[in-house]
Amino acid sequence: MKTYRVAVVGAMGAVGTEMIKTLEQRAYPVSELVPLDIPANEGKTVKWKGQDVKVRVAKEGAFAGVDVALFSAGADASLALAPIAAREGAIVVDNSSAWRMDPAVPLVVPEVNPEALDAHKGIIANPNCSTIQMLVALKPIHDAYRIQRIVVSTYQAISGTGAAAIAELGAQARAWVSGGKIENSVYPRQILFNVLPHIDVFLENDYTKEEMKMVHETHKIMDPNIQVNPTAVRIPVFRGHSESINIQTEKAFSVAQVRALLEKAPGVKVMDDPSKLVYPTPLDADGKDEVYVGRLRADPTVPNGLNLWVVSDNLRKGAALNAVQIAETLVSRGLLGK
Amino acid sequence: MKTYRVAVVGAMGAVGTEMIKTLEQRAYPVSELVPLDIPANEGKTVKWKGQDVKVRVAKEGAFAGVDVALFSAGADASLALAPIAAREGAIVVDNSSAWRMDPAVPLVVPEVNPEALDAHKGIIANPNCSTIQMLVALKPIHDAYRIQRIVVSTYQAISGTGAAAIAELGAQARAWVSGGKIENSVYPRQILFNVLPHIDVFLENDYTKEEMKMVHETHKIMDPNIQVNPTAVRIPVFRGHSESINIQTEKAFSVAQVRALLEKAPGVKVMDDPSKLVYPTPLDADGKDEVYVGRLRADPTVPNGLNLWVVSDNLRKGAALNAVQIAETLVSRGLLGK
Repeated sequence: MKTYRVAVVGAMGAVGTEMIKTLEQRAYPVSELVPLDIPANEGKTVKWKGQDVKVRVAKEGAFAGVDVALFSAGADASLALAPIAAREGAIVVDNSSAWRMDPAVPLVVPEVNPEALDAHKGIIANPNCSTIQMLVALKPIHDAYRIQRIVVSTYQAISGTGAAAIAELGAQARAWVSGGKIENSVYPRQILFNVLPHIDVFLENDYTKEEMKMVHETHKIMDPNIQVNPTAVRIPVFRGHSESINIQTEKAFSVAQVRALLEKAPGVKVMDDPSKLVYPTPLDADGKDEVYVGRLRADPTVPNGLNLWVVSDNLRKGAALNAVQIAETLVSRGLLGK
Repeated sequence: MKTYRVAVVGAMGAVGTEMIKTLEQRAYPVSELVPLDIPANEGKTVKWKGQDVKVRVAKEGAFAGVDVALFSAGADASLALAPIAAREGAIVVDNSSAWRMDPAVPLVVPEVNPEALDAHKGIIANPNCSTIQMLVALKPIHDAYRIQRIVVSTYQAISGTGAAAIAELGAQARAWVSGGKIENSVYPRQILFNVLPHIDVFLENDYTKEEMKMVHETHKIMDPNIQVNPTAVRIPVFRGHSESINIQTEKAFSVAQVRALLEKAPGVKVMDDPSKLVYPTPLDADGKDEVYVGRLRADPTVPNGLNLWVVSDNLRKGAALNAVQIAETLVSRGLLGK
């Protein structure tokens, strides 16, 4: 079997760590793993198949001989480094928001629009976590019944912010238990036992950037005709984003038909039996690959209305797994190592 | 000034404790406070204006001479005891769901429908916490622009479940910090660092009872013509319910007009300046009387669409305060001590 040199940029971060784990778990055909990070992390090690592999500095020259580079280093680093990596011959799969809306860059959820990869020019963008899980759940419904409008409110885990946020929530929990002072620096307010209706920066239209990502990315990945009305909210959960989604479709459906569609949809696991208290929660999705769907029920307040509750591990399907699946699809579509 | 004998039934519970505190804070004209609870709590004491007052047993005969009885003892106790209390001459303000949909029982949010009190027959119902804060925020908008449809997703604090849930979340936090086993008995799953799309029991239509309360109570209190599509979700927050609300109105409005309306609305505090990171969170509302509104923004996906983020202390305005305000309104409308 052909194997590939795979770089992970931001290898010491929350998503980078998960990318390396996911590459190993899914037996991606790696000939050499190249962990890259900022100079401060040079010489530290990551675990790869039981071995310690030294982290090198992510910079010009580091991508020579690399076939595919999974980036999770933030938008600024990606803007600077992704074109360099591509020029040095790597195909970049970037997890930041830097390239997502660039018309020359495919924005891909493999279950939704794998064919968009064929037109890549060296950089491919991984969508935002909250968009990915929503579209994996909605794609089969859209194909069958044409979604016209989405109203979505999110319940997003703090690991989406990164390792510093994970540390902050843990530190706040310890301070609360010990009766110490609860301090915050990553978030503008305490996140422990609190809720912030604020993810990423506020834009001129009073939506946050996170919310507008869900609008624009849905249009680019699935269908520009779908109306998307999002509210993005941070809650004190470590891993696993949840979404309360209300949709209206053009064509009529029964809930049983939708359930049957979702039960055979790739990447989806239906977890929906309220009478037995079966519904997905973030802890059910923690460390799992699937997008979980529950609380399926008709919304009788509009024609063809439906509610769903969609949960997925934001570091897996929402980031690392989707990036690795893109790398897998590059292989299966014959786009890698050409 | 005329004063009244006021009983609090469920005086040792989370809401009962808050009711007593609220009566004192708002200087309700109390001649005697009569704390009542289950036999197991007989002889325990509650604090009232610096004094210890002994808890008596809530039973037949306990309401003789009582002018107004604030009940927060659960639906079963209320079904049994409220008619007895009314027969003994007290006006009952009941916080449970037992009487809310009874056509003979007024269901009242004083900012929304105080006039409904005039027809009372001895029992008055306090609405569900999630309904109260939603309607306080939406009433001025409905009056001016006629709300046609509401899509609401809630982020509800565990104190709504009661004192046992408060203990459980605290115990889970201590177990998490000490590395011990996280146990659950109040909720069907761990609530610490988790989210449950499940409040109260599931009904035949796959909505929960909590969700359908928001539908039916909105119809009874504000307008039966409003379409309400709810999703009720429990999150790991001690106090303060948040709601992501999307509405569509019949008449056109500007966001500035809505903001101006809300700024002068009774019981509402607008907290909405995203560029300065001003938006309400549960910790902002903790212990406060107001219903906080933020994240006001147009929803361009439908004609006359609007999003709001509404936060309030579920034990205060969502329960104890609204009940005390009903008792105050009984005085101001001349309905007490007739």
